[in-house]
Amino acid sequence: MSSEPENGGELLHGGKFIELRQTTGDRPWEFANRPNAKGVVAVLAVTDDKRVVLTEQFRPPVEKNVIELPAGLAGDIPLQEDEPLETAARRELKEETGYEAKSWKPLGDTPTSAGLSTEVVTFFYATGLTRVSDGGGDSSEDIKVHIVHQSDIPKWCNDRRAEGKLIDFKIYAALYLAKSKSHETIGRLWY
Amino acid sequence: MSSEPENGGELLHGGKFIELRQTTGDRPWEFANRPNAKGVVAVLAVTDDKRVVLTEQFRPPVEKNVIELPAGLAGDIPLQEDEPLETAARRELKEETGYEAKSWKPLGDTPTSAGLSTEVVTFFYATGLTRVSDGGGDSSEDIKVHIVHQSDIPKWCNDRRAEGKLIDFKIYAALYLAKSKSHETIGRLWY
Repeated sequence: MSSEPENGGELLHGGKFIELRQTTGDRPWEFANRPNAKGVVAVLAVTDDKRVVLTEQFRPPVEKNVIELPAGLAGDIPLQEDEPLETAARRELKEETGYEAKSWKPLGDTPTSAGLSTEVVTFFYATGLTRVSDGGGDSSEDIKVHIVHQSDIPKWCNDRRAEGKLIDFKIYAALYLAKSKSHETIGRLWY
Repeated sequence: MSSEPENGGELLHGGKFIELRQTTGDRPWEFANRPNAKGVVAVLAVTDDKRVVLTEQFRPPVEKNVIELPAGLAGDIPLQEDEPLETAARRELKEETGYEAKSWKPLGDTPTSAGLSTEVVTFFYATGLTRVSDGGGDSSEDIKVHIVHQSDIPKWCNDRRAEGKLIDFKIYAALYLAKSKSHETIGRLWY
């Protein structure tokens, strides 16, 4: 257990994938950090007939299956630490769901829990989809793919919640942003 | 540093507010947990003239000001560990923004980062608002309140992002859910 001051605060405990740190100064603040990742990406992938590609997998921290956008870490693969976020998004979409996409647009970024961790997720909107494999994730993952029409999403997700699964609201946030864009109310969103 | 197995996995490091744990078994999974909280609540509070009550505060883990829904921990106050989530939501809305609300409806719940932490946030939709104080948070907080018309939210948030602040996408998720409800496409949402 090191207490050496570093950029990003003092290390309280260094795990293999997550470390617990705290800010230095008069009012220390504890937080979690992923030392081996450069970012996190999530993908709103929509087919030509307006169906959204979702994933389902068991998530140990919450001890439940979770319905999510295809997502994953960027820069966590040895020798690929500097991969651009869009490259990571393309890789994760294909690995998890088997889809490739012609068009990629950034949808913005969000902290997932700004009081708890350093994690910031960058969203992409992927269209022009072609399915090239079954997906399912890498060798350590067991991911189920769901294809749901975007107008059915709220009810479909609610039905899954009633089955005891959790719904990651990043799905809803991405759909809100994509719809805002389609209404052209926020031209500057596409920075 | 304890390695005693417990419900929720093995403790790797117990901080004051956050602990680092890992699941036991063949494929241990590290995760962060808040031992002193029973839940987290977030509030979509909308005035009669359709303006949304947002907060802004500096968040040490991400080292930026973050625009968020009014939110906070439930069950983290000594002797109030069993407070219902709606009670926590009412308390946080009033503390942070100075608003009280007549109508409270649950909007569902979401893990914030299901691979990283146990955190699940429960959303409430609060209407019939009356401002009774300035808000600003408790003695340890310094929270600024923003009141933004819901149709201006995407552009307004995007402008704040351009200033270097972060936007918590839970704002967008809550607006998507509230709009879905208003279209009556998901009657069962209100479980």
